[in-house]
Amino acid sequence: MSTPAESYLVGLIGEGTTHSLTPALHEREADHHGLRYIYRTVDLTVLARPADDAGTLLSAGRDLGFNAFNITVPAKQVVLRYLDDLSDDAARLEAVNTVLIRDGKFIGHNTDYSGFGSALEEGLPGASLGHVVQLGAGGAGAATAYALLAAGAQHLCVLDLDPARSRERAEALARIFPDRNIEWRPIGEIGDLMSEADGLVHATPVGMHAHPGMPLDGDLLQSRHWVADIVYRPIETELVKAAGAKGCRVLDGGHMAVGQAVDAFRLITGVEPDRARMRQHFLSLLRQGS
Amino acid sequence: MSTPAESYLVGLIGEGTTHSLTPALHEREADHHGLRYIYRTVDLTVLARPADDAGTLLSAGRDLGFNAFNITVPAKQVVLRYLDDLSDDAARLEAVNTVLIRDGKFIGHNTDYSGFGSALEEGLPGASLGHVVQLGAGGAGAATAYALLAAGAQHLCVLDLDPARSRERAEALARIFPDRNIEWRPIGEIGDLMSEADGLVHATPVGMHAHPGMPLDGDLLQSRHWVADIVYRPIETELVKAAGAKGCRVLDGGHMAVGQAVDAFRLITGVEPDRARMRQHFLSLLRQGS
Repeated sequence: MSTPAESYLVGLIGEGTTHSLTPALHEREADHHGLRYIYRTVDLTVLARPADDAGTLLSAGRDLGFNAFNITVPAKQVVLRYLDDLSDDAARLEAVNTVLIRDGKFIGHNTDYSGFGSALEEGLPGASLGHVVQLGAGGAGAATAYALLAAGAQHLCVLDLDPARSRERAEALARIFPDRNIEWRPIGEIGDLMSEADGLVHATPVGMHAHPGMPLDGDLLQSRHWVADIVYRPIETELVKAAGAKGCRVLDGGHMAVGQAVDAFRLITGVEPDRARMRQHFLSLLRQGS
Repeated sequence: MSTPAESYLVGLIGEGTTHSLTPALHEREADHHGLRYIYRTVDLTVLARPADDAGTLLSAGRDLGFNAFNITVPAKQVVLRYLDDLSDDAARLEAVNTVLIRDGKFIGHNTDYSGFGSALEEGLPGASLGHVVQLGAGGAGAATAYALLAAGAQHLCVLDLDPARSRERAEALARIFPDRNIEWRPIGEIGDLMSEADGLVHATPVGMHAHPGMPLDGDLLQSRHWVADIVYRPIETELVKAAGAKGCRVLDGGHMAVGQAVDAFRLITGVEPDRARMRQHFLSLLRQGS
């Protein structure tokens, strides 16, 4: 462990980060612990800079006294080449959303996966992971799938509107977890798959304010399913509502969003944050923003 | 005025800034006002970067969400070429120690001069500025001399171990204040000059822990002189002690150091800091460090 910093300066590098709720989440939690903390957004869209500039920004941040960065779309992969070290999980995922700066070195972590994992554990305790269907094979889907498998999922089926992407994702995951049954299937087979599944993870943008709607036919949901969404704007997506109405156990997308912040805060400060308090703050921020 | 920032991120660019007292001064004062505030040192010596990199660091700071920078030796002049705008006083001084970042633009100010000016006014109220002798014609001396003239000094004589430097300084000041009597003289004439002077400003490193001693023969001090030192480590320099023993009115170097921070804090936040509180904090930091 390095000497605790007297204060924490953190940035979020990615496109469209200006209106992220994460800065407020971190800063408020730090206040509760009496930590001096500033969390700045570094919006590549506003700066008109490409994701490839992540390395330059990291180096500048190091020289200017930053303690850590969160990294989001589209820089979670490109940042890998600038790191001095990274966690085993981030290396397997080939994606980093948290970079600690320690003694001038960049150390990568992935709290998207760990945040979803702890959200599952706390929000859906005891949920059967025997057979899980996941909709969406993009970056967020990579993290949720990895978390499911790390948590012990035996049979994971990945579906995506882009079959090539679901295939690549399934094959990459199978290389990491060779003892599991990991497959990809055409989206048209979701009906059959749900009839065999214990639970559903939804990791596409459908249901967001900008993309309203259901990502699958609500009739496919049965009360025995658990349902985890990653969309949190709105917090009550159509999927979350439909699943709740069917009597399913439901994990809304806020849990993953808060989970990644909880784990990043702990990595950055070495202090255990209060997850329930951060969740309440997150929900109040969402209400203010809507 | 731009919209008040929710929090303030400030850096100090210069050589050997790692152990500066200014970060603690700003942060503590901000705490009293309930402002979220982080002040980082950007030590060119530690980073092994030249003063010419000040522009690159300013741009990086802008992109990473900094609100302002203080600039110190040896970058106070070189930074001029990277500014979008600067105050009249900083332009005349050709030196900037504070850069505000507003709407992506860099605006230069000089609170070394204004800090010394307000220190003089508050610490030595009513001091006669008819005839002032200043020892030292370097960067700090430029700021104190400018402040003296801005405060109304009629006759200023600048002395330096380097005659060329005192001449250049005197000539530069005479161009800015053409209605005053500004001269430079060999250091050997200090005896005659002090016999005519109302007050003495000391702006060389003599008296610092690393350069102990008196910058002039103590016998030249008379009780009618006021004496202002800019050295503050130690706060009681040999000059300050000798002048006090002679019954002179004395301004120690801490007043200028605090004055520049007071004025920078006000520029950065728009909030009026408590000068006396910052002075007490500064003195306690000095005691901790000695």
